[in-house]
Amino acid sequence: MEDDLLMIPGPVKLHERIIRAMSRQMISHRSSDFERVFEYCIRTLKPLFGTDGDVVIISGSGTAGMEAAIASFSNVRRMACIDNGKFGERFAKIAERYVQVDHIKFEWGRSIDLERVERSLAEGSDAVAFVHNETSTGILNPAEKIAGIARKYDALVIMDGITSVGGDWVEMDRWGIDVAIVGSQKCLGAPPGLAAVAINEKAWDFYREDVPFYLDLKAYVKKAQENQTPYTPAVPLFLALAEALKIIEEEGLERRIERHRKLANATRTWALNAGLELFPEIDEHSSYSNTVTAIKMPDGITDKQLRGTLREEFGITISGGQEHLKGRIFRIGHMGNAGKRDLVATLSAVEEILLRHNACAPSIHSALEALR
Amino acid sequence: MEDDLLMIPGPVKLHERIIRAMSRQMISHRSSDFERVFEYCIRTLKPLFGTDGDVVIISGSGTAGMEAAIASFSNVRRMACIDNGKFGERFAKIAERYVQVDHIKFEWGRSIDLERVERSLAEGSDAVAFVHNETSTGILNPAEKIAGIARKYDALVIMDGITSVGGDWVEMDRWGIDVAIVGSQKCLGAPPGLAAVAINEKAWDFYREDVPFYLDLKAYVKKAQENQTPYTPAVPLFLALAEALKIIEEEGLERRIERHRKLANATRTWALNAGLELFPEIDEHSSYSNTVTAIKMPDGITDKQLRGTLREEFGITISGGQEHLKGRIFRIGHMGNAGKRDLVATLSAVEEILLRHNACAPSIHSALEALR
Repeated sequence: MEDDLLMIPGPVKLHERIIRAMSRQMISHRSSDFERVFEYCIRTLKPLFGTDGDVVIISGSGTAGMEAAIASFSNVRRMACIDNGKFGERFAKIAERYVQVDHIKFEWGRSIDLERVERSLAEGSDAVAFVHNETSTGILNPAEKIAGIARKYDALVIMDGITSVGGDWVEMDRWGIDVAIVGSQKCLGAPPGLAAVAINEKAWDFYREDVPFYLDLKAYVKKAQENQTPYTPAVPLFLALAEALKIIEEEGLERRIERHRKLANATRTWALNAGLELFPEIDEHSSYSNTVTAIKMPDGITDKQLRGTLREEFGITISGGQEHLKGRIFRIGHMGNAGKRDLVATLSAVEEILLRHNACAPSIHSALEALR
Repeated sequence: MEDDLLMIPGPVKLHERIIRAMSRQMISHRSSDFERVFEYCIRTLKPLFGTDGDVVIISGSGTAGMEAAIASFSNVRRMACIDNGKFGERFAKIAERYVQVDHIKFEWGRSIDLERVERSLAEGSDAVAFVHNETSTGILNPAEKIAGIARKYDALVIMDGITSVGGDWVEMDRWGIDVAIVGSQKCLGAPPGLAAVAINEKAWDFYREDVPFYLDLKAYVKKAQENQTPYTPAVPLFLALAEALKIIEEEGLERRIERHRKLANATRTWALNAGLELFPEIDEHSSYSNTVTAIKMPDGITDKQLRGTLREEFGITISGGQEHLKGRIFRIGHMGNAGKRDLVATLSAVEEILLRHNACAPSIHSALEALR
């Protein structure tokens, strides 16, 4: 198996220090050694969520975190689920198993109509679930504005921050987000397999007792007081996450977000100069994602030709479109510890393949300029 | 953080090859590289379960596997949950969230009264859930006999094989077990964070659609046909599990189980010769566990004195009792890739500490003889 350069929106390429952090003999999950690791993870995750509230870590994928959030706080009359991409749709699908759902659906890649959200709340929804950074389409949804509307109605706000926390600004407490989720393998730069959930006090007004055992956030919060998990944690992934968080601490959140913005901006600059079209349709409330860029597949080349050749000739993996967007877009992840060199190599290689099919104009220098 | 020697009933000490298998750059979970790893894991897990049926792998702890099994197959009238230890109790607690439960409760460490099980089935239970190897008490429950009774009533049989699969004989298909679960960090010898669930055809008669999204086994079985997982898998743990399964393949299951038996027998021989008492009360149906030995705490020494000193002076971690057994027993895990040297070091050190408190007789040589 040859080394891949992963430029997908997670799992991301691992920093060598993170790989090394996992490479050690097992420690007991009930030892003080583990408790120190746990405590460090929780303490350093809080500022990334922008919260002073509780943070817990589930051994499982981001989806486990999404479901834990929905299920644990499903004592609601009706949940407004905003869907303008695959993960918004998943949120709604999960919610349907627990609550009455008002589906607020937009075409994937389109911005959210905030009036439609307000109407749902005015008409009886007392909870909102939405995705901050929609990985499937490369759009950043207006978290602060959605939370602002929800606050007027005293509604519960659950946010999927899986691909924003650690790569873009998230300010749960200031914005009024009650519950947010992050995945380990995205902007945090750690391997996949852990989901952290941040929970503010107000969420407990919506707590429901009879939720799935493994996803019951009350059990996690209770054990977190002893720096412990209720069920055996995925110890190596905690060791890796702690190292990933140490790297974030060293880089500093502001600089880290600035780096993500710079990479995103360079990717967009390159695409536009190459004559390509960005996929999302941005309005005054939304913006392009700073952690993943979605670009329309130009005429003259297929998904297989682009991504297959990229992988075979260059060992670089980027993402295609999901569901009905398969073949219609390609997505470049620039999150976690991705750097200039990785991005330049990726954009150059993509450009080279597109040029062979007369599917773009040469523009790699515009990316390099934007990266200065 | 100093290296621990873990002699607990999981997580177990990792073989160096398993540590190295995790220590590599991330690969895409949607790549053929990952699919090869996945396919190998599934193929080599089947003989450990003794099944030709489906096997799926969930990123989560053993508890996630237990809940996935119960929830997915909860279309039952009533589930007989056998509880003669902490994990039997957990099974019942999980089941209560999904089905009507007949609690078949015995004192922890006592054997199961099979007549009581049969009565539950005769009186309307159409499913049985039980723990094969009860980690909390060191007893091996009579899986084949329980399944035999259940078959008479055409009932669903769900077995927690978390600390037996890979360390003792499990023959799902021959015994008539419909669903069984194993945890990665026990007899398989891999790190914690994965749970595999084996599912036979008959289980689907009891499938329920509206189960938790993350724990819906139908989604896992469907994606497994493409050697994939429905949600982002904990990639490094799959790499480690594949290496752990390779070690099992090389050792051979029969030799591996023989090694577990030998280590268990040596531990019991040592304990009895030291004048200590084994905790479980065995009858003609049950037997002592071959993967973990539970010993009554002798007079004259506290749990803290024994396990604390063991950790501080020798860097060895063994387990205490759980819940009401805290301080009353200690437990030595001898599972996974544990070998003679690890066990001799552990028993010698335990003996040395007990001798200081006049709490046992010297008997380490009996263990060495039993290990020959």
